Amino acid sequence: EIVEDLVAFLQPKLLAGRKVLITAGPTFEAIDPVRGITNLSSGKMGFAVARAAREAGAEVTLVCGPVSQPTPRGVTRIDVTGALDMHREVMARAAAQDVFVGVAAVADYRPQAAAEHKIKKDDGAPPAIMLVENPDILAEVAALPKPPLCVGFAAESRNLADYARKKRAKKKIPLIAGNLIEHGFGGEDNTLVLFDDAGQTPLPPGPKSELARALVAHIARLLRGD
Amino acid sequence: EIVEDLVAFLQPKLLAGRKVLITAGPTFEAIDPVRGITNLSSGKMGFAVARAAREAGAEVTLVCGPVSQPTPRGVTRIDVTGALDMHREVMARAAAQDVFVGVAAVADYRPQAAAEHKIKKDDGAPPAIMLVENPDILAEVAALPKPPLCVGFAAESRNLADYARKKRAKKKIPLIAGNLIEHGFGGEDNTLVLFDDAGQTPLPPGPKSELARALVAHIARLLRGD
Repeated sequence: EIVEDLVAFLQPKLLAGRKVLITAGPTFEAIDPVRGITNLSSGKMGFAVARAAREAGAEVTLVCGPVSQPTPRGVTRIDVTGALDMHREVMARAAAQDVFVGVAAVADYRPQAAAEHKIKKDDGAPPAIMLVENPDILAEVAALPKPPLCVGFAAESRNLADYARKKRAKKKIPLIAGNLIEHGFGGEDNTLVLFDDAGQTPLPPGPKSELARALVAHIARLLRGD
Repeated sequence: EIVEDLVAFLQPKLLAGRKVLITAGPTFEAIDPVRGITNLSSGKMGFAVARAAREAGAEVTLVCGPVSQPTPRGVTRIDVTGALDMHREVMARAAAQDVFVGVAAVADYRPQAAAEHKIKKDDGAPPAIMLVENPDILAEVAALPKPPLCVGFAAESRNLADYARKKRAKKKIPLIAGNLIEHGFGGEDNTLVLFDDAGQTPLPPGPKSELARALVAHIARLLRGD
């Protein structure tokens, strides 16, 4: 851990004086007091980005869904449950940031209404869960009058480059980090490809900590306008 | 930890020579490769029961859904995801057991069919999730020709005694441990009330480890026919 601390300390302060807001983890969309819809995001990549941004000298706020990750030192953490909570906490802070990195796997949909009490099986035939669309946090931040530099993540099970390019164009965000789901979900390692105006940059596969540092360096270059 | 080990070592061997099968944690019912329906069960109570049964001298197998709990020493652990996996692993072993304790919060329903690829938002209007009923693992084990002593858990947000009694009668199981959801879900402490032929026995509120030991002692008494 001392080596790890030393490595962290020796990172170049590429984001000194910058404010960075990051989302991480899954969201949990309540069906009733105990059940909900969620996804397999472990939060590790988002936490790695928060750590890397902090090591690079930024003032970092991390809004995260239910995960069991320890808070990186020096990072302000805000715990949320559903996409609506995450949306509220992000929008309250986004305009004051230099960078927004949406790593969270925010649910596209939530159940129309959460039941107040646990739904019982004897209540009859299997219910269907009716869904409504959640707000698109990244697109809303990118649509602010003076948006922070926005970075999105795309996790796909196929056609990664195609989806990542479309997402970037549709939400008008400068940088998308894409990964194929068979690499990375839940694990320590990952493979990332960066999509920006300059094209497509695959990062060397490696631990999420190293990918996060490479991403932070890329963000710093975009901020400087290189 | 040495004190903890000593306390464990000194537990009376009430279940020496007995085979105990326990389920724990939530199940995760896939919607697509990354999303699913789950619940807030932490697995702590089931793991505490497994530890207590092992301390009491039993040969313990623990079938658990996705949780981040460490495996208690000497316990055989089988990791599963959905209710169908849990059902298969339990039914393969249940007939050979002396005791079956179903602590897992098994989903009553699962999505009719899991999508092979991640469902995309651009695929049109918000989908509804159609559900089908999952097998009732506890009831199936209790309905075996020579069933093990079956113990169920009931976690309810209201009307605990009523639901627990109905569940016991409907599934024909000798012992139900009931708890109200405002106590216990996710935490270290819990409140349990035992429902059996003799009536209703509230256990003193306390850490899950102590409640698990009291439950194991109660199970041992039922096995002896006291």
